[in-house]
Parts: sequence; C-alpha cells; structure tokens
Amino acid sequence: MTMSNLGIVKRAIERANRAAVDQLSRYGVATVHEAMGRVGLMKPWMRPIYPGARLTGTAVTVLLQPGDNWMLHVAAEQLKDGDVVIAACTSDSDDGFFGELLATSFRARGGRGVVIDGGARDVAELTKMQFPVFSRAVSAKGTVKATLGSVNVPVVCAGALVHPGDVVVADDDGVVVVPAAIAQQVADAAEVRENNEADKRAKLASGVLGLDMYGMREPLAKAGLRYVD
Amino acid sequence: MTMSNLGIVKRAIERANRAAVDQLSRYGVATVHEAMGRVGLMKPWMRPIYPGARLTGTAVTVLLQPGDNWMLHVAAEQLKDGDVVIAACTSDSDDGFFGELLATSFRARGGRGVVIDGGARDVAELTKMQFPVFSRAVSAKGTVKATLGSVNVPVVCAGALVHPGDVVVADDDGVVVVPAAIAQQVADAAEVRENNEADKRAKLASGVLGLDMYGMREPLAKAGLRYVD
Amino acid sequence: MTMSNLGIVKRAIERANRAAVDQLSRYGVATVHEAMGRVGLMKPWMRPIYPGARLTGTAVTVLLQPGDNWMLHVAAEQLKDGDVVIAACTSDSDDGFFGELLATSFRARGGRGVVIDGGARDVAELTKMQFPVFSRAVSAKGTVKATLGSVNVPVVCAGALVHPGDVVVADDDGVVVVPAAIAQQVADAAEVRENNEADKRAKLASGVLGLDMYGMREPLAKAGLRYVD
Amino acid sequence: MTMSNLGIVKRAIERANRAAVDQLSRYGVATVHEAMGRVGLMKPWMRPIYPGARLTGTAVTVLLQPGDNWMLHVAAEQLKDGDVVIAACTSDSDDGFFGELLATSFRARGGRGVVIDGGARDVAELTKMQFPVFSRAVSAKGTVKATLGSVNVPVVCAGALVHPGDVVVADDDGVVVVPAAIAQQVADAAEVRENNEADKRAKLASGVLGLDMYGMREPLAKAGLRYVD
Amino acid sequence: MTMSNLGIVKRAIERANRAAVDQLSRYGVATVHEAMGRVGLMKPWMRPIYPGARLTGTAVTVLLQPGDNWMLHVAAEQLKDGDVVIAACTSDSDDGFFGELLATSFRARGGRGVVIDGGARDVAELTKMQFPVFSRAVSAKGTVKATLGSVNVPVVCAGALVHPGDVVVADDDGVVVVPAAIAQQVADAAEVRENNEADKRAKLASGVLGLDMYGMREPLAKAGLRYVD
Amino acid sequence: MTMSNLGIVKRAIERANRAAVDQLSRYGVATVHEAMGRVGLMKPWMRPIYPGARLTGTAVTVLLQPGDNWMLHVAAEQLKDGDVVIAACTSDSDDGFFGELLATSFRARGGRGVVIDGGARDVAELTKMQFPVFSRAVSAKGTVKATLGSVNVPVVCAGALVHPGDVVVADDDGVVVVPAAIAQQVADAAEVRENNEADKRAKLASGVLGLDMYGMREPLAKAGLRYVD
Repeated sequence: MTMSNLGIVKRAIERANRAAVDQLSRYGVATVHEAMGRVGLMKPWMRPIYPGARLTGTAVTVLLQPGDNWMLHVAAEQLKDGDVVIAACTSDSDDGFFGELLATSFRARGGRGVVIDGGARDVAELTKMQFPVFSRAVSAKGTVKATLGSVNVPVVCAGALVHPGDVVVADDDGVVVVPAAIAQQVADAAEVRENNEADKRAKLASGVLGLDMYGMREPLAKAGLRYVD
Repeated sequence: MTMSNLGIVKRAIERANRAAVDQLSRYGVATVHEAMGRVGLMKPWMRPIYPGARLTGTAVTVLLQPGDNWMLHVAAEQLKDGDVVIAACTSDSDDGFFGELLATSFRARGGRGVVIDGGARDVAELTKMQFPVFSRAVSAKGTVKATLGSVNVPVVCAGALVHPGDVVVADDDGVVVVPAAIAQQVADAAEVRENNEADKRAKLASGVLGLDMYGMREPLAKAGLRYVD
Repeated sequence: MTMSNLGIVKRAIERANRAAVDQLSRYGVATVHEAMGRVGLMKPWMRPIYPGARLTGTAVTVLLQPGDNWMLHVAAEQLKDGDVVIAACTSDSDDGFFGELLATSFRARGGRGVVIDGGARDVAELTKMQFPVFSRAVSAKGTVKATLGSVNVPVVCAGALVHPGDVVVADDDGVVVVPAAIAQQVADAAEVRENNEADKRAKLASGVLGLDMYGMREPLAKAGLRYVD
Repeated sequence: MTMSNLGIVKRAIERANRAAVDQLSRYGVATVHEAMGRVGLMKPWMRPIYPGARLTGTAVTVLLQPGDNWMLHVAAEQLKDGDVVIAACTSDSDDGFFGELLATSFRARGGRGVVIDGGARDVAELTKMQFPVFSRAVSAKGTVKATLGSVNVPVVCAGALVHPGDVVVADDDGVVVVPAAIAQQVADAAEVRENNEADKRAKLASGVLGLDMYGMREPLAKAGLRYVD
Repeated sequence: MTMSNLGIVKRAIERANRAAVDQLSRYGVATVHEAMGRVGLMKPWMRPIYPGARLTGTAVTVLLQPGDNWMLHVAAEQLKDGDVVIAACTSDSDDGFFGELLATSFRARGGRGVVIDGGARDVAELTKMQFPVFSRAVSAKGTVKATLGSVNVPVVCAGALVHPGDVVVADDDGVVVVPAAIAQQVADAAEVRENNEADKRAKLASGVLGLDMYGMREPLAKAGLRYVD
Repeated sequence: MTMSNLGIVKRAIERANRAAVDQLSRYGVATVHEAMGRVGLMKPWMRPIYPGARLTGTAVTVLLQPGDNWMLHVAAEQLKDGDVVIAACTSDSDDGFFGELLATSFRARGGRGVVIDGGARDVAELTKMQFPVFSRAVSAKGTVKATLGSVNVPVVCAGALVHPGDVVVADDDGVVVVPAAIAQQVADAAEVRENNEADKRAKLASGVLGLDMYGMREPLAKAGLRYVD
C-alpha cells in the first residue's frame, strides 16, 4: 500500500552533527528538555532497565508490529557508529522484542543503545554488558518474525515524534528527542542553562530562597496569596 | 474564594513532638502502620526514587496545581529543621515538579525529604545527594509557576489525609502518616510491636509454625478447612 | 461448597523431578520460556522486589482471598525443601500479604522464595535476607486472617496456570511455569538452546548480521520489503 | 485499637441543611465544583454504572475492608431519608461489594444512592430500579462479612475527604463533596454561576468569541502569543 | 514444538449438557458465580461492547498471538449451534481482532457471541446485529494472519481457566466460566439461590435490616463493633 | 524560545479537500484505517463521551498545557466550517478542559466536534447538544488560563501525529487521522474496501468459511497447523 509507511527501509538518512551530539551527551534529559522549550519528551512510562543507564546518539528509527521483532534485525544493518535504535510499535505491546543477542549485534555495528516503546528481556545480561535500554516494560515473552514494519521512517515513540537522524538523550529521568536541525542550538542552550544552574545551586545551598532569587514575592501577592497564622 | 483552601499559606503550624518523631524514625513503615491499627497509609503507587531511601519528619503540606510547582518555592520558606514536604495536587499529574535545585534549597532550610503525589526529576543528582524522595512518577517534564495552590492546609496525598505537623514515615514499603496528636502513642505501640517481633522471628526461624504460634488450627478447622491427600 | 476449590489443603502433591529442577535453575526465564514453545509465562506486572532476585523450585500453590493472608500460614506446613510458594488471589489486591516473618518461617521449612500476584512488604529486610520475592506490588498494608482459601489446588497466578509440584523459574525477566510432567524435556530443550546461543552470540559480536545468520533476506523480500534512499 | 478509626459506628451525625441539599440538587457536578473553588472532587475513575445516573444527598460514610461488605449492612440501619452511602476501602478492591439486595434495603430506609470506591454488581437490576451508583469498577465478585470497618467516620473516598453529613453531588461528570458547613454558601454560589452561564452561552452561540467576552487578547499578547501565517 | 499447545486444532470436544446450559442462561453472572462458590470469574476489565449484552453458551476456545487473528478464522469451522468463542492471547494486546465480518460468519455457523481478552471493532455494526461481545478493549486496529495459535486447547482468558466445552455466562456484571462437568449442579444451585433471593428482597424492601435478617448483630458485637454517639 | 512550538498561532493552514472529507465521512474508522494501510490510529483510550458519537472534519490542532485550557479559546477564532478541534497536551492530564460553553462557541464558528487527549465535562449537556467529543477521560475538574500552548502546529495526539488541515474520522471504534495530501486517495481506497466487504459479508452469512473464502487452508497447513480429535 503506497499510502502507508509500512514495508520501507530508508538507507540514506541525515544524522545530526556529531559535535552537537557529543555536546548534548554532557547534559541530563531534564536540562535538554528545558533548553528545547519543554517539548520532545517521551512519556514517563519509558524507564531504564537498570538504574544509571545513560544514552546519547543519533536515531535509527524502527516501526514494529505487535509481538514481532523482524524489523530490529533489519535495522541492525542500517546502524552506524554512534546510532541509537528507537523502536515504536503500531499498537501497544509489552512483549520482549529486544534482548542480549540483538544488543550484541547492535553493539558490533556501532549501536550505543535502544529506546523501545515495548518490552525488553535479558535484563541481567544487558546490565552486565552495560548496554543501555529504555523500555515501557520488561518481559521474557519472545516475538515472531512474520510481518513487515519499517526502518528509518518518522515514528511516534512513546508520544514523541522521532525522525531518523534526530538526537536522542536518555537517562534516569526519561528520554528526550532533539530534531537534528536544531541539535547544536539546543546543545548551546543546554550549556547556558547548566552554567546558570551552578550559580543558583550555590545560592540555594547557602539558604537563599527561590522566592527571592526568582523574584516571586510580588507576582505571588498579585495573584492573591495570603499568609495566615 | 473563601470557601476554598486555595491561595493560603499557613505559617504557624503545630509540629508533632520531636521525641516521638525520633522514636518513630527507628521503625519501618509496615510496623508503624500496624501500630496505628492499619490506617494512614498512602497508595502503593508512591515509590522511592532510589532503593533504600528512608525518611521520617514533620509534614509541611503543599497543594499544587497540575503542571505547576510554584507552591514548592513558597513552601521552602516555611520549612524548619526536621520537616518533610508533603505535596498533593488538585488533579493527577506526573510532571517533574521537584528536582535537584529545590532539594538543595529544602535541605539548606532543614528539610529532610519530599513526598509528592506527582513526578520528580534529577534522579541521578538526588541519589548522589541521598535526598529521599517518594513520588508517583519520575519525569523530566518541567513545570510552570502561574497558579496558586496552598501551603500548610490539610491535603489528601495519594489517598491519605495529612495535616501540617503530622509525622510522615517513608521507606521501601511505602509512606504512612501519623497524626501529630497520637505520634507518641503510635511510637510506643510500634516499639512494643517491634520487640514482640524479635521473639516471633526466633521461633519461626527454628521451624515453629505460625499455625501453632498464633493458635490458628482451631479457628481454621472451625471455618471448615479440610486436609485431603 | 463441594463445587469450589476453596477451603482445601492438599497434602500429597507430586513434585517435579529434582534433577530437572536443578537443571532448569541454570537457565534464565527467557530461555526456559522459549524452550517450552513460548507458553507458561506470567504477566509482566510480576517484578522482583530487589534487582537480581532469582528463583527456581517446585510450586506449593496458594489461593488467597483479597486482604487476607491466612492461607500463607497454612502453606508453611506443606513446604518441603526446594519448594516455592506461588500465591494467587480470588481478586486483584495489592495488600502486603507477605513479609519478613513469613519469609523466616518459609525458609526454615525449606522454602526458597515466593511468587505472589499481590503485594509484599518488608522489602529492606527481605533484601537483606536475600529471600527472592516476585510480586505485583509492594505495600505496607497488613492483612487479616479471617476467610478460607486453599493450598495446593491448581491456581491461575498472574495469567499462568500453576499446578502444585510444577517448576517455577523467576528472574529479572519475569516468571515462567513449567508443568512437572515436562520439566526434564524443557530442561533439555533449554540446554540445547543455550548452547546454540553461544554460537550465535559470537557471530553477532563479530559483526555478522542476523539478516544473514538467520537467512532473513529472502523472506523479507518476498514479504515486499523495499529499500529506498 | 483506640488510635484507629476501625470498629466504630457513629450514630449521631449532623447532616447538611436540607434546603441547601435541595438547592444543590439542581446543579451539575462541574458547576458545584467550580462554585466551591475547584476542590472536593473525587478522582475521575468514579463512573456511573448507567448513563444519566444522578444523585444528591447527605453522606453516611462507610470504611470497608477489601473484599468485605459487612459494614454496608451496618450502614443500612444508620440511613435517614435523603442519605447517600459513601463507601471507601482501606485498600483498592474492585470486588462487587454492592448490588441489588443492598440497594433494595437502602432504598427502603430512605437511601438515595451509593458512591463506592470499589466494585458494584447487578448492573442490569440497579438500572431497572434506577438506583444511582457511582463506582470505580463493575464486578460480579462477591464479598465476605468477616472484618470490621467503620460507619460515619471521616473517610478519604477516591481522593476526596468526606465527613458524615456532607453533601454529595454526582452525575455523568463525576462526584463532588460539599462540606456540610458551607453547603448553603456553595449552593448560592452555584446559583450565581448558573445564572451567569446562561448569558455567556447566548453570546457564544451568537458567535462572540471567548477571547473577546473574557478579555483574553491582552493577557495572551503579554504572555507572548504570536500569530503567524 | 510438542511441549507447547500452539499449532493445534482439537475437533472433538465434549460440550456441557444442553439442558444445563439453557438453565444457566436464566441466571445472571453474579448469581452463577455465587452458586459456584465464588470461583471462575474473569477479571473485571472484560466489558460488554454495548450495554445490556448478554450471553450463555458452550466454549470453543482460541489462543491468539498478539496482533494476529488467524485462529479466529480457524475457529469458525469448529463452531456448533450454541457455541461461544472464548479467545485468549499469548500476551496482552488491545488490537481489534474481531469485528462484523467474523461475527457474521460465527452467527452463520451457530455461534452466539464472543468473549475476547483483546480488542474488538465495528462496535456500531455489532450493536445493530445485537451480537454480544465482551472484550478488554475497543480498537479499530486491524490484525494480520501470520502466526499459529490454537483452537480448543485449555486457555487462561482474563484470569479464568477455560476448557473447550465449558459453559460461559456473560452479562453487564462480567463473565463467568462453569466447567462442563458441574454445569447441571451449578445451574441447580443457582436456581436455589435465585429463589432464595426473592424472599430476601421482599423482606429488605419492607424495611427489615440485613443486620436482623442475616443475624449479624451478635457476630458484629463479638468482633468488637462499638456504637457511639 | 524560538526552538519550541509553544506560543504560536498559525492562521493560514491548508485544509484537506472538502470533497474528500465528505467522502471519508461515509466510512467507519476501521475501514479508513485499513484503507490507509493500518497507520494513523489514535490509542484506544480515546473514547466517545456518548455511544454513537461520530465525527469527520478537518483538524485545527491545539497544544495545551496540563490543567490549562487557554488555547482552546484561542482556537475558536481559527475555526472554519467543517473543522474539528484536535487537542493534545504537553503531558497527560485528565482535567475537564472542554465543556458545554466551548462547544457552543465552537459550533457557532463552524466546528463539528472535538478530539482531546485530556478530559471533557458537561457530558449530559454535550449529549443533549449531540456535539461529538472523543476524549481520554471525563472529569468535572476545571482548568486555568495561564500558560501558552499553540494552535495549528503539528501535534502528537494520543499517539498519532496530526498536522493542521488533516482529516480526522472518529466513531465508536476510535479516532484515525488522514494526512490532507492523501485524503482523496484514502477515501477512494475506503470505497473500494467497503464495496468489497458487502460481497464478503453475504458469503460469510451464507455459511461460507473465511478459511475457504480467503484461501487460508494451504498457508495454515504449511505453517504446521495440526487437526487432532
């Protein structure tokens, strides 16, 4: 069906600038999300399979069918050094689409990690490999290889639109997607923000109140806040 | 609107007796909950953001609006040494209301931790700080500062009624609220219970059955339990 | 009521062959589940209460009533060395049916761990004991001892049918049930599978693609996959 | 246990003024909730068991144990004409605590309906009776009568604090609780609001924009809204 | 894989006695569930796709794969007059496995309705046909025909074990499964129960309290219930 | 923040061809979704607020902030005859963003209905108006007007990407989005499909099996399906 994005592998994708990716890898998801103007975040049901997992890279996108991981094998061939596999599914499925063998293959091809709006398995092995995976579920349930999806088409993954080549940043706080075209701009904004925070942190640590540091007392009073005893 | 609890900061609150709080800090949530007669527990969706987080203190309550953390900044000023911020929201929201900067500020003002029926972020930093947070979600999604809620009004947080000054005890098993007026009484009951348990534990470890230790055989038979081969 | 399975304790149960259990204990849940032909898995909401928990043993089944853990005490007496308590509930309940004292008793009677489609508590203590528990929830909420359920009747636990004596294997990936009658057969199939995987892993690690190793290129083309630039 | 609210039936409760209740029965839940300043609403998981169910009355509160409806029978005796039974549970349970026989009894005693943060059953019969029930679930699962809860103690029901005698208003939009002490005040505010709305409705129906009617253009511009082509 | 139940169609199944099925069709799910001793109920997430749907028949069971409805087509051939298709899935999937065309086929083959622990679609058409369907979800998402499941093997559907030939009773209150072997016995017990209820209903309608009718006052007092003013 | 899509109202949008929209309005969501190649469907949590609600039109998109419906008022001005408001939110919120007054305004401006990944209220009034609304929740909880979102930017609504001007089709089966550029093509494919179905329906109604009509027997046998007695 030509109208649909299914059954397609796009080989030539434009990846975000490597320097921007490297710079973004220095900031946390919360900082990057703020730097982008609070857009691009995946739903909070996406969690790391082990605490402390952390991941930044360029997206190779995958559209899966429920209970079917065929396209992850197709995606492996499209990986370049520094890529991250971002897998969405045509409908919600907690099955264990991804595990240790695929991780071994992805890593061998330059893949840095996986973000999948579905289930992952082999948590113990993936933890030992320190291969970062962010998923909606953990499940030992295996999948078939029977129905076509796509690779490197735009996908909606856990509520966020991802184009192939976009930058994906993931840590304990969640997963954020930075469009390739503004990666450097966001990285710079994140840096500014980070520098700013050091200053604020020091003030707050010394006992200064946010009420004063951010000048909130007047707008609060204007909004009608009343102090009572 | 005078009927509503919104837009108010109560400064003078009566905190539970410090000695009772200290005593309660020695017991787990399950013990305290039992000692109170099995009431006062928050819903099990409230989880520590890192394993092993543990928290006891007096409640400074906050009523938030969805996607808005203004009142947490207002609450910082009301904190005294040994307080815990208990934040409810007027409707369910997983946004990241609370993070490292606020934690820095709360700690500087004597705050021991946070219980929030909403989202938290900066999990890695909060873990490094060992600042205990119990929340319904983790999310990098930032919040605005636009709409009034309240500080130190009674709130329903994750299904539990909390008055400012109540004792809050939280650990890996959940979060329990002890009304200030019965804090000492509950602490004493918890102590009795804890002492009792050591004894039971030793018996059970030696192979004695609960069936015998608790005298259950007769009531089970009376209820009609049948043993078959 | 004779039609119902409630109010019964079956003492004489046939446990799976010990050698098969021992052999199964060497494989992960994902491997065992694949070896069985992808059946017998519990729902992915069953999670270990601490990371790395791992458990293999023969099932002593329990049918609980919501908010009531009486039958767990009855089950303790039926435990033999190498058993695992598998507890289902007549309706969903997150209450803390199981905690440290019962764990102490179960361990003293030979029990290796617990799988409960309900809540557990005393997470800190159970972690210290390294007593593996897989549950649908963690909750400090205590339970009563008032209504009969059953012990060693067939139960549906988290979507999986479990007969007393079946083998239960649980790890970070979930919980799978192996019927006693095919335990050895499954163990052997798991071994074959495991051996196979080492080979595949090596190939994938060297950069060979699953597309080639599994011979997927032809079926993909036949299904209509199109590569575009 | 004297600290706990369990095991108590309070007979003498102060009900909200009947005239205020009657007046409140003329307004929808959304109007009443707004009139109160946007507090007092139960969680949106509370739904009518049939479309169009509608209910206003004074609360007789019940605290249930999971899977146990004993206290609903105790509550029947405490009902007076115009009362509504508001049932909370010590932990979440979808069991069918309430059905046609209890409805028959409640109605015979003057009860107007039920709000239960648990399950209801006999939906077909209750619909035929036009007995309004708002619940978190529908389930045929029966309950036992074995463990004490309480009647006419303050309860947290679906996230809202309810005192015996408070006014409860429920319709297709949800359930709101009006404290007895401010029932008349809220009823009057609801009336003002309702009158106001007729006017607004007419203007909007004629094509006037909310942007103009509410004077939003300036604050939007000030907040930075940009119109682009 | 011979260990697994997948890839099998059992043609010769023993259906419950027709007279017992007819008798059971006169009672509601709640009554049948009580008559069986409170077992055999599916999870409350199973809901009719239109209010008032009602269904009794003998089970033809189906085990589906997620996102794949191939086996429903296989099941059509196995239907006999008075059968109901009970479809489970190897993992949770809300896809629209079942719709109007299959309903047309099932009805032509004698099928009375469908119970599916998955999604259904064509709700408007199925309602017009008055073809009763009970499902976990409604979804327009289509499914593929690519992977084998089974027909007429025992399945766990929405938490209930179903053998082919068992009686399934479904109405607005949920879905209950009666093993074929005890269908007559349960039907008789349901009749007794129903007759009993008429009597109780009349008493309660006249104002008699359950407290008195069921003789609860003494056990309540013994359990420690206290009346206070 | 120029990187973000927040704070923008796009006035000039290209709507899908009216004839294509009219043609699409004759088909159900399931048919349109199939005709598109099974993409573009919103998540199944999107439900009509009254049974039988049905809606086809061109999208005016809105990006809301949680608990804030300011942008819906902004959107009213952008409506043209035949439009549908598609509202997404920067994070999940069940608040009652939309109700009768806004419906009155939208209808006066040519709006046909609303699809909102949030809560709606005034269900009784909207039903009386027969104003079709599809939402993730029903809630009486009111919202503020304090923080900017956007109008007519691309949004992800309930998992589906929507551009302003796209066609939205909604009925009891869910909500599907047809990109404006392929609206006519999809409408034609839907027509073909619909015509095809009449034929299939007649055959199935006469007792022909899908197994034969679709030629499934051979592929089933090849996949290894075994019939046993």
